[in-house]
Amino acid sequence: MAKAPKDLSDLFHETLKDIYYAEKQILRALPKMAKNAQTDELRAAFEKHRDETEGHVERLDQVFEMIGKSPRGKTCDAIIGILDEGKEIMEDFAQTEALDPGMLAAAQAVEHYEISRYGTLKTWAQQLGLKDAVPLLEATLSEEKKTDELLTRLALANVNKKAA
Amino acid sequence: MAKAPKDLSDLFHETLKDIYYAEKQILRALPKMAKNAQTDELRAAFEKHRDETEGHVERLDQVFEMIGKSPRGKTCDAIIGILDEGKEIMEDFAQTEALDPGMLAAAQAVEHYEISRYGTLKTWAQQLGLKDAVPLLEATLSEEKKTDELLTRLALANVNKKAA
Repeated sequence: MAKAPKDLSDLFHETLKDIYYAEKQILRALPKMAKNAQTDELRAAFEKHRDETEGHVERLDQVFEMIGKSPRGKTCDAIIGILDEGKEIMEDFAQTEALDPGMLAAAQAVEHYEISRYGTLKTWAQQLGLKDAVPLLEATLSEEKKTDELLTRLALANVNKKAA
Repeated sequence: MAKAPKDLSDLFHETLKDIYYAEKQILRALPKMAKNAQTDELRAAFEKHRDETEGHVERLDQVFEMIGKSPRGKTCDAIIGILDEGKEIMEDFAQTEALDPGMLAAAQAVEHYEISRYGTLKTWAQQLGLKDAVPLLEATLSEEKKTDELLTRLALANVNKKAA
């Protein structure tokens, strides 16, 4: 019989499975978003982030190993909802001026979900004394934040271009 | 017949409906989270944010009025997924040491969703020349960021308390 979840290490493991599933879904979504991008800058941003995301999955594999668990995801309703909203925008605003802004917004919602999860996992890794996991989670957190900042710059560049 | 969505003002309106729905769901979720909180600080944080959230809904009402639309939400799968994950944690980790950390994590996922949406809406309001909407969206964005920072402080205080 499986032990009922009850302490912070269980919660850490559950949340690791949550973000593992999320990263795999993101890995599948990014090529479609890159294909739909109307500007080279946005396409390049999505492609670069796809490559980074492969690295994020590898780091999670290592963290699973550190806690003696096999890397496995569990359905993450949050990322499904966030990505579904992105898909809806890609359909509803296909070939319109709002497509790139809509995909930028969807991608930033994804980044913010990941920023919250990696921030939380890093804090818990500290609390649980998982010293080797902390720099791995921190490295991914830092890349997610940089991606979000890049997307913000692209969104603002869009505003300035229209205003010019 | 309704006009097919096709420009940035349509996307702005759709996203406004999305966050309006999300804020109303958050308004319903926060009292339950406050009730379950194990520390006075976390309970107070949830209660304060519930009050702020009422103000966020009022600001959105004003933005709807500025674009000549009636305030109405539309189902936001992202917030449903995020809040469902929070409910699952409250059930699975009820009366355990991981309950408060789990609720903090859930609340930070909510905050980050809102931060991404209000950041996007503010940028689009600038682009669309909705000058009176910008400070309203900025005010809420700033409160969401402050709430996220407070939750981070509470999560880290938890770490330090355990370490002491």
